[in-house]
Amino acid sequence: MRYSYVSHLECPKCDLIYRKDEVHHLCECGSPLLVRYDLEALGRDIKPDALVEREQNLWRYHEWLPVEDTANVVSLGEGMTPLVPMAKLGKEIGLFHLYMKDEGMVPSGSFKARGAAVGISKAKELGVEEIAMPTNGNAGAAWSLYAARAGIKATIVMPVDAPEITRRECVVAGANLHLIDGLISDAGKTVAQAVKDFGLYDASTLKEPYRIEGKKTMGLELAEQMNWAMPNVILYPTGGGVGLIGIYKALLELKEMGWIEGNLPRLVAVQSTGCAPIVQAWQDKKSSSDYWENSETQAFGINVPKAIGDFLVLDAIYQTNGCAVAIDDQTMLKELHTIAQIEGAFICPEGAAAFAAARELKNKAWIGEEETVVVLNTGQGIKYPDTVESHPPVLKKGEPLTRP
Amino acid sequence: MRYSYVSHLECPKCDLIYRKDEVHHLCECGSPLLVRYDLEALGRDIKPDALVEREQNLWRYHEWLPVEDTANVVSLGEGMTPLVPMAKLGKEIGLFHLYMKDEGMVPSGSFKARGAAVGISKAKELGVEEIAMPTNGNAGAAWSLYAARAGIKATIVMPVDAPEITRRECVVAGANLHLIDGLISDAGKTVAQAVKDFGLYDASTLKEPYRIEGKKTMGLELAEQMNWAMPNVILYPTGGGVGLIGIYKALLELKEMGWIEGNLPRLVAVQSTGCAPIVQAWQDKKSSSDYWENSETQAFGINVPKAIGDFLVLDAIYQTNGCAVAIDDQTMLKELHTIAQIEGAFICPEGAAAFAAARELKNKAWIGEEETVVVLNTGQGIKYPDTVESHPPVLKKGEPLTRP
Repeated sequence: MRYSYVSHLECPKCDLIYRKDEVHHLCECGSPLLVRYDLEALGRDIKPDALVEREQNLWRYHEWLPVEDTANVVSLGEGMTPLVPMAKLGKEIGLFHLYMKDEGMVPSGSFKARGAAVGISKAKELGVEEIAMPTNGNAGAAWSLYAARAGIKATIVMPVDAPEITRRECVVAGANLHLIDGLISDAGKTVAQAVKDFGLYDASTLKEPYRIEGKKTMGLELAEQMNWAMPNVILYPTGGGVGLIGIYKALLELKEMGWIEGNLPRLVAVQSTGCAPIVQAWQDKKSSSDYWENSETQAFGINVPKAIGDFLVLDAIYQTNGCAVAIDDQTMLKELHTIAQIEGAFICPEGAAAFAAARELKNKAWIGEEETVVVLNTGQGIKYPDTVESHPPVLKKGEPLTRP
Repeated sequence: MRYSYVSHLECPKCDLIYRKDEVHHLCECGSPLLVRYDLEALGRDIKPDALVEREQNLWRYHEWLPVEDTANVVSLGEGMTPLVPMAKLGKEIGLFHLYMKDEGMVPSGSFKARGAAVGISKAKELGVEEIAMPTNGNAGAAWSLYAARAGIKATIVMPVDAPEITRRECVVAGANLHLIDGLISDAGKTVAQAVKDFGLYDASTLKEPYRIEGKKTMGLELAEQMNWAMPNVILYPTGGGVGLIGIYKALLELKEMGWIEGNLPRLVAVQSTGCAPIVQAWQDKKSSSDYWENSETQAFGINVPKAIGDFLVLDAIYQTNGCAVAIDDQTMLKELHTIAQIEGAFICPEGAAAFAAARELKNKAWIGEEETVVVLNTGQGIKYPDTVESHPPVLKKGEPLTRP
């Protein structure tokens, strides 16, 4: 049995095929490339039971991943995050089967660790010596750390407004970090120039084909954790959209192999009202989005005015009869506090937006109370201290405390 | 088969026995109480193979835990943290089998989640309505969150110098938080008074017997992850010492059941030179420690001038032929950066101190290069932003970046 069943790269727009063992970025038509596998052979060689005793991280799905030699795997134990029942919140919302897949519990505290683990491992396999990428913070942090582990250099550019802690993660990992007085799209232009000037490996969202394969494991895990019976609805906070695209890709691959059956879950892209290009495009029934001018939101991870993979996100929504929802910052912060106070989970604002969207879609009866609903929390609340105001009283030694 | 094999509480100092189904704190002799199990029956009823297909969190060891009714389990999916090979660091130090058990990958980002999950679950089972505790930050954060999930109120007192993020975790969870202009020992006095004044449940370190049972699962997991063949040395950053006591208790229980054999791992308590009461006591061959005056260290979690369980920590060290090591702040911060830069792991200063201790003990030939060594990293680096200085250059839109 092979370690990986990867076969080739394919353009989802023009169907052009590329070799798997060479460095490729976008298709010559400008589209991102997708990784394809020999799923027929894989389906013959492996059955779900074979997974049971495997290691508890995303590499348990190595056949569905692009790394061909186990010696190139760069891992900090990422993946197999818990699927946490949210019974009290569900009762309040009126959803009786509500779950959170908690992506805070991975190295660097955000789901970006998955893309970084697989992306850096494949970069190592391809002989890459230095990567470069724009980021809203968390991806840069994760890629800097995994690059350090792989012995690969990293050049990172992030907006000055990105979460402060993510700067320090890049710096402690030894990355070459620059801030930019602008948005991630401005950072992207600077990185594109540096890639050209210095011959770096462009690790920008969807400009290399492997990050999505790491994100895909969220879908594989979810399917296995639910014993191959899928939920009715999956909600995902959507900036660049790779998480949602990855989950959709996982579900398609499992369906092709016959491991899951019936309708796929309805996929919901959740954005901020301050930056909602996908929501706008979906409302207009369009297949791609327009640049969102003057975007702004406290959920920094989803402040992406124009995603290169927008057409893939929209396709996933349309194909699954999903939808797209925008949540304002005040509503998402209220949800964040509610979830901490009744469920004991301190989640990131992006994750809170997705829960708020579940609440809104239940109120509109787009989700029924007996449906099984999974919300992806994409990171730990501790990376976003500013979401919580704290003014505790200060006692002198020996001074008694007061109770509310 | 029973869900829990708990039988009673026992005083390790005067051997007095207490009932398992009542609220108890310290023994009447002043010592912490330990939870005892019917290990003989458990050994008859279960074999290691039975664990393989269980859920991937600490509740897979429910027979070794004090919660008797599964309905009282309060869980966010904590436990089964990865055991990460540290090959590059090991090569640099001269240790060829070096591993990190990464306790950052749990809810709230520190190992305190284990004690909180089990402690709060048992408090729920005992009908507790409000807990109170002093904390150096991480424990208060974890207990606040799990208490919120359980519907239990929490009163928390922490030093003003405790990590800022941990305040916000308490507040977002709805805890009644007070800061105190002093150390955790001062916070402890205030809590003791509040416990008396308001009839609260005292959840201070080792003043309730169940936190240690949660910590114990680190030892159970380690044994299972190493296929019941134990490492030669385990290093643990030691403040209150419950982690180390818990691991030792796990090993003793497994040994009594015959699941592990031979010498136990040598246990190493790692402290800061700015607060090293256990190290001092060990050097003086004493069985308990003296209050450490004017303690100070950036590794705030191990700034505990006098631990109530000091005699249990020292006993674990003596019984396993272990030792105690103090590391200065500069050395631990250097180790923290080295680990991020070559292993890609951004760990907490307490964890970095334990790695620095491994390096020192290898240099002194107290650890041999072929020995298997496990270092516990007790939390995520992202909870301690001040350990990393960051002054990245800021670009204007369109400005090209520079490379080092």
